[in-house]
Amino acid sequence: MTEQTKQFAPLVKRILTDGKCLEGGILKVDNFINHQIDPELLKQMSIELVRRFAAKDINKILTIEASGIAPAIMMGFLLDVPVVFAKKKKPSTMSDMLVTSVFSFTKQRSYDVCVAKEFLHKGDKVLFIDDFLANGNAAKGIIDLINQAEAELVGMGFLIEKAFQHGGDYLRGQNIQVESLAIIDSLDNCTITIKE
Amino acid sequence: MTEQTKQFAPLVKRILTDGKCLEGGILKVDNFINHQIDPELLKQMSIELVRRFAAKDINKILTIEASGIAPAIMMGFLLDVPVVFAKKKKPSTMSDMLVTSVFSFTKQRSYDVCVAKEFLHKGDKVLFIDDFLANGNAAKGIIDLINQAEAELVGMGFLIEKAFQHGGDYLRGQNIQVESLAIIDSLDNCTITIKE
Repeated sequence: MTEQTKQFAPLVKRILTDGKCLEGGILKVDNFINHQIDPELLKQMSIELVRRFAAKDINKILTIEASGIAPAIMMGFLLDVPVVFAKKKKPSTMSDMLVTSVFSFTKQRSYDVCVAKEFLHKGDKVLFIDDFLANGNAAKGIIDLINQAEAELVGMGFLIEKAFQHGGDYLRGQNIQVESLAIIDSLDNCTITIKE
Repeated sequence: MTEQTKQFAPLVKRILTDGKCLEGGILKVDNFINHQIDPELLKQMSIELVRRFAAKDINKILTIEASGIAPAIMMGFLLDVPVVFAKKKKPSTMSDMLVTSVFSFTKQRSYDVCVAKEFLHKGDKVLFIDDFLANGNAAKGIIDLINQAEAELVGMGFLIEKAFQHGGDYLRGQNIQVESLAIIDSLDNCTITIKE
């Protein structure tokens, strides 16, 4: 279970320097992950994730638009495998597809996540990549899509995990290899506490 | 004006092989650009865009979420400059920002595009990157944001331009260096006609 507590120092350092903690357990990392992206840090983080999943056979990266796209693209580039991004709305031009419903805790409503059947199917060995792991609802939706497709989930990689929202506990309890580059224990009192 | 008609052969070939033309002038490139991304093609396209803007001094890549993120990230990686993605909704955690309104021809309604002031400002030399150039409304919105920020637009790079929707004519008429890797003359009768 050492994976749970391995912290990737360059990201932790950056979170403590540039991250902002807002009321309600919100961690704002707009200036290097969510709104402006630092390409050097993105490369370092992606290489670290490649290293952590080195033992796995991967033929596809899956993410959810929009903020998961950046690390997913860099992983796809490094591993030379296709990157599929699940969409949060059914595109008008997409017909034959897999759909799941995800409840957003932040927005207090459900939304559909979908992927065309032709891009996720039996035999695929899928690594899911996203920026944040919080309560794990999006990840659960992805597991549902992968099960529908009869594909294989080989692991889930996140840049930042909010341990106090327990999505990581659930996913690791399902025997999924979950790797998070920075794990945050608490954002109470607008203070960022990194897991020991 | 040779830039207007330079076609990037690997992309043109892929469009003719895997692109699908739907009713209403829609070009579907889901299996290599919009939903599933081919990392090798993405790298080749990004390098070609780097080559075309080689004479320009660039310190920031700007794009609009979601489908512009992939090429923008790869460009940022190659040029080692930050990538900023303008957002289509005002995030609840974002305060001090620039906003513009863009009319979507496809959806027949306007939407806001915004960027935090701290990520776009005077002195920035901005290269805008997006997947599609059609009527140019999104690009006009970006120009407005760049003007509001008193930043400098050094050029606009697109993967695919629909010449028959004339956004490229408008932008080139403003003396902007516009580079499109594949230019499509017509999608009439569900046939993809590449510009000569």
